[in-house]
This record gives sequence, C-alpha cells and structure tokens, in this order.
Amino acid sequence: MVGIVEVSPRDGLQNEKTLLETDAKVDLITQAIAAGVTRIESCSFVHPKLVPAMADAEAVMERVPRPAGVSHIGLVLNRRGFDRAVSAGVDEVNVVVPASDTFSERNQNSTTDALTAVAEEVCAEAASTGLPATVTIATSFGCPFEGEVDPDRVVEVARRSAAAGAKEIAIADTIGVGVPTQVRTLLDGVRSVAPDVVLRAHFHNTRNTGFANAVAAYEAGVAWLDSSNGGIGGCPFAPAATGNIATEDLVYLLERMGVPTGLDLEKLIPIAGFLSDQLGYRVPALLPRAGTFPG
Amino acid sequence: MVGIVEVSPRDGLQNEKTLLETDAKVDLITQAIAAGVTRIESCSFVHPKLVPAMADAEAVMERVPRPAGVSHIGLVLNRRGFDRAVSAGVDEVNVVVPASDTFSERNQNSTTDALTAVAEEVCAEAASTGLPATVTIATSFGCPFEGEVDPDRVVEVARRSAAAGAKEIAIADTIGVGVPTQVRTLLDGVRSVAPDVVLRAHFHNTRNTGFANAVAAYEAGVAWLDSSNGGIGGCPFAPAATGNIATEDLVYLLERMGVPTGLDLEKLIPIAGFLSDQLGYRVPALLPRAGTFPG
Repeated sequence: MVGIVEVSPRDGLQNEKTLLETDAKVDLITQAIAAGVTRIESCSFVHPKLVPAMADAEAVMERVPRPAGVSHIGLVLNRRGFDRAVSAGVDEVNVVVPASDTFSERNQNSTTDALTAVAEEVCAEAASTGLPATVTIATSFGCPFEGEVDPDRVVEVARRSAAAGAKEIAIADTIGVGVPTQVRTLLDGVRSVAPDVVLRAHFHNTRNTGFANAVAAYEAGVAWLDSSNGGIGGCPFAPAATGNIATEDLVYLLERMGVPTGLDLEKLIPIAGFLSDQLGYRVPALLPRAGTFPG
Repeated sequence: MVGIVEVSPRDGLQNEKTLLETDAKVDLITQAIAAGVTRIESCSFVHPKLVPAMADAEAVMERVPRPAGVSHIGLVLNRRGFDRAVSAGVDEVNVVVPASDTFSERNQNSTTDALTAVAEEVCAEAASTGLPATVTIATSFGCPFEGEVDPDRVVEVARRSAAAGAKEIAIADTIGVGVPTQVRTLLDGVRSVAPDVVLRAHFHNTRNTGFANAVAAYEAGVAWLDSSNGGIGGCPFAPAATGNIATEDLVYLLERMGVPTGLDLEKLIPIAGFLSDQLGYRVPALLPRAGTFPG
C-alpha cells in the first residue's frame, strides 16, 4: 500500500497559462475525491500577485466537498500564509523550503537557513493547534540555477523540521532532474535524522525519470507519493517546466506491481479529458490515450 | 556499464506513417554511430508488402558506415528473412518470437511453438556460420489480444532458444504494459533456464512505465537495453501504439545514476530535431525539450 497525494489543484494549476475558475477547481477536486483521493493539495496560500492562479484559495476552500476521511492540504511559504490557511479551514499544511540558496532567493527572496527557521515556526505553531504539518524540501535533486545540491543540505532541513514538530517530510524534485539512486540516498539521509516522520516524495517527469523515481521511493519505503491528474503543471508554452508525474499513470504502474493505492483508475481516467478541455491542450498523461491493461 | 542497442532505424521507423528515404535512414544511422552507438538495429528483413517502411533493407545495408566495433543488426522473422540478412551482410540477426499465440497468429500467422522452432533453426544456422543471433520474445509482458501472458511461456521460449544456440535473449514489452516487478520475474525465469546467454530488454513507454522498467532491468543485470532516438515508433495518429523508450532520456537517466553507457548525450540530442523534421511532428523524447542537468 502506498498513498497518493493529489496535487493537481495546486502544483498542477499554479503554472498553467489558463487560469481556472473557482468552480472548475472545485469540480476537479470533487472528481478526484470521487476517484478515491484522500489527501489533496487543494490550494496555495501565497501572495496573489506572485501566483495569480492561486488567488482564490479561500473561495476554493469554502466550496470543496469535505467528506469524512478526506484531508485538504494548503501549501504555505510563511507565517502569513499559515494564518490564512488556518482561517480558511484546511486539514493540514505543507510548508516549502528549497534546499538550494539560489532557488530560495529567486523563489522566496530568502535563504535555505532562514526559510528552515520559518518552517520551524510554522511546524511548532501547527503542532500547538493540532494541525498536521509537512515540510517539502524543494530542489532536493538539483537546482535550476546552481545545478548539483549537496544531499547534506536536504538532510539538515529535514533534521531541523522534524525537531520542530513536522509530522511528514517530502523530498521534492522541483525541476525533474532526479534519478533513483538519488531517491535512495536522500531517503536514507532523511530517515537517519528523522526516524519518526512520515516520508513522502514529489516528482516531475520533465526528463522521463519521474516514474522510475516513484518506484524507487515506494521501494525505499515512502508512505506517500505526490502526483497530478493528467500530469498537468508547468506551462505548455515553456516546455522546460513540465508537470508532476500523472496520477493515472502512477496508479496503473503501482497497481500492476501489486501495490494498492485506494484509487479507482476508471474514475481517474476521465479527469484528463476534463482538464484538457479546461486548459485547451492535450494533457501529458499517457494512460488516457493508451488505455488500461488489455484483455 | 550497460550497453544500448539503438532501434530507431527498425522499431522506430517501421510503424511511422511517413516513410523515410534510404538516404535519411543512412543519415540517422550515421548520426547514431557518431554519438557512440555500437549496436544498431539498422533494418528488418520482413516482407515489403507487410512492412513497406523496411522494403529498402538491402539498400540501407549497402550504404551504412561500417566502422570497426559497430555491429549492424538485421531483424528477421523466418528462414527467408535470415537468408536475406546474411546476403545483405549484417553483423548479427535478431529473431522475433511472440510469447502469445494470438499475437503470433495475427503478426506472423503462426503459433508461439512453431515460431520457436523457426528461431531454433535460425539460431542453429547462425551459429554454424559464426553470426551472433538474438531471440527477442515479443509480448512478454502482455498481449494486446489476450491480456495476461503466462511468464512460463516466455521462459520456455528462452530455454529452447538458448539450447538452439542463441547468444542473447531479449524480453520485449511490445505494447508498453509492463512494470518493474514483471521485469524481475521474467529475467529471473530466463536466467534460470539460460544461465549463459546475454540478457537484453526492450521497452516501450506507452503507459509511462518504460523507464522504470529499464532501471529495474539494469539493476537485475541485463547487459543491453533497447531504445530509440527521439522515442520514435508507433503512429502519431494512433497514439495507442507508441514509441520505444527514448535513447537520450535513457542515457540521461543511466549516466546520472553513475552508469556509463558509452554514448555522448550532446551528440544524441540533435538527432531528435532531425527526426522531427523528417517525420513532421515533434518526437516524444523529453530531454531535447528540457535540456540536460543544469549548472
């Protein structure tokens, strides 16, 4: 068994050129939940000027279905975002800390060290209010500006986050450069300093390594994998920034390996059509084109 | 170290709607060799009415570069094809036997048992003339008509082929349905009955499992992986039949894992542009879009 965190409403949509209406986002989230998704990154509480696609985070949270057993995750970058997420009634928060200083600077105008301190504060605050907090370590596998990222930097963010009360740590291949050997090295490192946290991994398929990484992460013992319906994300007009691994392709891969995911492939597959219609291009997931196992 | 067998001139082109001129095929093969390819499936000696794209097999072999250390492979389905391949001067042959009876019937108007007998004859003949012979076991991971394929059927073809003198056995996921657990099961099975043959694997990325399978096959000890420049193959207008795993993406994946391939990524990447121009659509390989590791 491995769990899947559906990230299409957040990581999937945040870089798309086409902005979806709040209704369409709620429709997407509703379809994902109907297909069996139990954890979903429904919105991001970032500054609306920086990420216009996420400006309606509060409106999304007001309207999403809230069945028992389904957890809506809000992504936050700082204390202000955390406070908004709490007010909006999320079930859990996901704080992002890039392992690379240059990416921290360009993305969040700060340093890895300072953003880890922010994550520590958010984790402590979340723990005191009973809200589960995940720390996602961005650019764990490589930085678009610096290239190689020292695995020790990833491990150090993990150590401090766990000590501050993070319930879960995700290693994230933000730009889709990672390979399975890195997955194993990083997970070993994180586990060595944070033996009690839940492990999660986040991959993009930018260079066709994302699904191999997902298999490596599952086999190295992660409890949760992030993926995106349709494999959306990134801008179709700037192909160097491409989408998360596709949920339907990941479910096919895992279930054929005998690993239950709890998701219903037949209900997942039509979501790609919905997203293609909404976004105006054919989404990259392959299973909706190829079909499930024959016979 | 793992070797890569370049199959774009054969498996890549045989299903494309656009027929390449002989000159363009020779150009493709020349570029691949310049990028470090040492084994290349340059043509297929099948009936020209059945596969018009391969009708110029003899003309291709007449014109390809033949530097020392480069082996041109001819695909054959029967004794007639083998005789043509020998006359055309190939360096080795690859005989295909589907593990599924229905696929054998539809593809070669025969049965797995009868086609294994053909492979036995070709392997024995090749051995007697000193020509290396590979047996590729098609539909090893699933059949488009029957669905599941009993792994014992794959193992039995491997056993008979090895006994008949095959130097190498390839397990092939003809329709891109396989997953890493199957890769390990099949390779274990083949190795148990053919401990002395060289192992090779052939994947399509139809459902985004191809690169995970390649990693599993490498880690299970195959000596050779098939791949196709640009990830070409299949018809872009019938997306259910899609291409081989892309050579450039595979080289990126393996080299980042610390596994040398002997290929030069910088020389491989431009081949995708050449193929896109020739075929009139953007080939599916991702590295030519995303770029190599940054920094």
